[in-house]
Amino acid sequence: MEHAKPLPSYLVQRYHGWKATSYAQNESWYRHLGAEGQHPRAMIISCCDSRVHVTSIFGADQGEFFIHRNIANLVPPYKPDGNQHGTSAAVEYAVTALKVAHLVVLGHSQCGGVQGCIDMCKGDAPQLESKESFVGRWMDVLRPGYEAVADVAEGPEQARALEKQSILVSLGNLMTFPFVQNRVASGDLSLHGLWHNIGEGGLEAYDPKTGVFEQV
Amino acid sequence: MEHAKPLPSYLVQRYHGWKATSYAQNESWYRHLGAEGQHPRAMIISCCDSRVHVTSIFGADQGEFFIHRNIANLVPPYKPDGNQHGTSAAVEYAVTALKVAHLVVLGHSQCGGVQGCIDMCKGDAPQLESKESFVGRWMDVLRPGYEAVADVAEGPEQARALEKQSILVSLGNLMTFPFVQNRVASGDLSLHGLWHNIGEGGLEAYDPKTGVFEQV
Amino acid sequence: MEHAKPLPSYLVQRYHGWKATSYAQNESWYRHLGAEGQHPRAMIISCCDSRVHVTSIFGADQGEFFIHRNIANLVPPYKPDGNQHGTSAAVEYAVTALKVAHLVVLGHSQCGGVQGCIDMCKGDAPQLESKESFVGRWMDVLRPGYEAVADVAEGPEQARALEKQSILVSLGNLMTFPFVQNRVASGDLSLHGLWHNIGEGGLEAYDPKTGVFEQV
Amino acid sequence: MEHAKPLPSYLVQRYHGWKATSYAQNESWYRHLGAEGQHPRAMIISCCDSRVHVTSIFGADQGEFFIHRNIANLVPPYKPDGNQHGTSAAVEYAVTALKVAHLVVLGHSQCGGVQGCIDMCKGDAPQLESKESFVGRWMDVLRPGYEAVADVAEGPEQARALEKQSILVSLGNLMTFPFVQNRVASGDLSLHGLWHNIGEGGLEAYDPKTGVFEQV
Repeated sequence: MEHAKPLPSYLVQRYHGWKATSYAQNESWYRHLGAEGQHPRAMIISCCDSRVHVTSIFGADQGEFFIHRNIANLVPPYKPDGNQHGTSAAVEYAVTALKVAHLVVLGHSQCGGVQGCIDMCKGDAPQLESKESFVGRWMDVLRPGYEAVADVAEGPEQARALEKQSILVSLGNLMTFPFVQNRVASGDLSLHGLWHNIGEGGLEAYDPKTGVFEQV
Repeated sequence: MEHAKPLPSYLVQRYHGWKATSYAQNESWYRHLGAEGQHPRAMIISCCDSRVHVTSIFGADQGEFFIHRNIANLVPPYKPDGNQHGTSAAVEYAVTALKVAHLVVLGHSQCGGVQGCIDMCKGDAPQLESKESFVGRWMDVLRPGYEAVADVAEGPEQARALEKQSILVSLGNLMTFPFVQNRVASGDLSLHGLWHNIGEGGLEAYDPKTGVFEQV
Repeated sequence: MEHAKPLPSYLVQRYHGWKATSYAQNESWYRHLGAEGQHPRAMIISCCDSRVHVTSIFGADQGEFFIHRNIANLVPPYKPDGNQHGTSAAVEYAVTALKVAHLVVLGHSQCGGVQGCIDMCKGDAPQLESKESFVGRWMDVLRPGYEAVADVAEGPEQARALEKQSILVSLGNLMTFPFVQNRVASGDLSLHGLWHNIGEGGLEAYDPKTGVFEQV
Repeated sequence: MEHAKPLPSYLVQRYHGWKATSYAQNESWYRHLGAEGQHPRAMIISCCDSRVHVTSIFGADQGEFFIHRNIANLVPPYKPDGNQHGTSAAVEYAVTALKVAHLVVLGHSQCGGVQGCIDMCKGDAPQLESKESFVGRWMDVLRPGYEAVADVAEGPEQARALEKQSILVSLGNLMTFPFVQNRVASGDLSLHGLWHNIGEGGLEAYDPKTGVFEQV
């Protein structure tokens, strides 16, 4: 692999700083994690967005959350066709091997992927409609969500509504996986939908009784 | 979505703690991120493993790293077949929309996905070979890596060797994406391979000159 | 401009070393910065003193901090009189054009400018009192700070107290700029006061609750 | 000063990392600098731009460069009118108190201040022409430079030409300070003009013989 470059020096410096402080202070816990394996309590499905750090919001330590991150925190429907499904593999591993107790889908404000989906569905982003567009094909997962918000006034309100649909669509698709269904039915697994407002530091949870997201 | 449950109270409590402290202290930066969008310097492709927090190791703030996490930090080869490829979508978005400067593949010790790949390739995990196994099909991406380490003595040494192959296979596959190739060729994008030792707090970087991973 | 001289050869040599190493390793990030512009998170107002490198203390990469440096890290009060105010221009650009989230005033120990202010205010430095003394007139900004520490025992203790006043006077003057006031009021900008002990490697932050600087 | 906020936690973390590594490894030098004062070899006049770190380019250690940074690395003409001139104060302190041997004006590519000057001089930025615009009044220093490049084709070429004029205007203004003139005449001080290309990592020095900037 001749294309790899050395790590930028400022990252090397920061790593050594981490090693000498955070690692040194928690060495016994890191050693425990290395030797005993992981036993996370929850799987988080979050966006790749650089502004969303679920470990920060929940003060999480190493070992607490098994975290999958993809564009717009989407889970495609169950489709065991023998092809590669990275998100489905992560869900399967968390639920059947790690036996996590919680599956949390965490959406967020100002999501570029969600905005791309709106543009595509409105016909404003032809480049996303080509077969070659990985982002476009990935956002196809969210098309049913767009149908649900197509009547909302265009602009920030619609974007916010679709961000929340991205959570509900993913939760709905999670329930199409037999191993998720089974553990939810037996009470061994619970699903949660959260939406994070980056600028305001807000956190809203989906309440199935009212059918809306409420500030926690 | 009638299956969603309220957020566990200990997470609600921690969220309020974060809001009152970290958020309150950095409110202006969060507002900036919400209003001005993200401009991350790098994309990190890391494992879902709960023990690996790249933001901690590199003292990263919100906004610095665009992070995709999947099982065993794998990137499948370029395959624009119109199907859903979450990893390819994340790479496409980071490279063509965000124009990140660095693509870092971060592997780690004691990787459960890598161990599963070894078991499967050795014939010890028939359940992973079924078409229905999402984890098995996902680990197919790493089969060429297993070929490279099949002769290493079984056990921890082989696992470690395959963990490092997971990084090299991903870096190699990244170079099959035309938009990655182009930006690497023009000097606008650099690739990096890192392996993290959880228990020891170690960090090794792949050096293309020597062909081995060296402690940074 | 006939007076310019060639660059000393040791600096030429060091530049070529940087180009072949740090630049080469981070070429993609530098290209990104050149093409995409700067998006710094914070403005730092620091002293020109050769011993104070804020980028080192905070492991900062190119692009993170917009840095203004002048004698004794002073900000004069808001005075839009049509004359040239380099510090005010830098603050205006950072706050209104770059929309930084943080404004950090960083003072330090053994500050020569602060010592000059003490000498001048005590009558021991008549040369600083002439209209022709740029340093003297610049240190006039700190005279209100001297009044606050005039009763402290002369010597290192008083110097340290005035170094901290240089930070508080600057923070107070920053709040006289309407565009700073507005963004602080809206939560989009936060102010911070830091004092760095050069010899000890210490860092103290001003705590408005206690009214004193505390080691971070 | 009730408006100061605590330092963001990621900066606290990075500081502790620095203290435990860079500081710890160089403690004796830091202690020396604290106890013995600064003896810098050169004064650098650079831009506040977050992408330009002269200490990085020249591999400079703490104590080597006395650094003044303002918008567009400008030095106004000598004007001892009793008002506050932060740049003139910094130059006076470096030349008469520290007796630096070199005065280096370092300009750079993609300078936002220089672009603002072009917009203002062309009549495209009326907001910069108001008496209240600190940036506009500061960029007045560069108006003579604009006259010199008014005939260059608009766009990147003109911007680059004016970036280099910002260096030459500053060098010219430096020679209006009597204490600079005297030390240049006696051979105790030399002036240097440098222009840095951010994306390319280039460094060009002004050559008074040819009247152009040449790659060093």
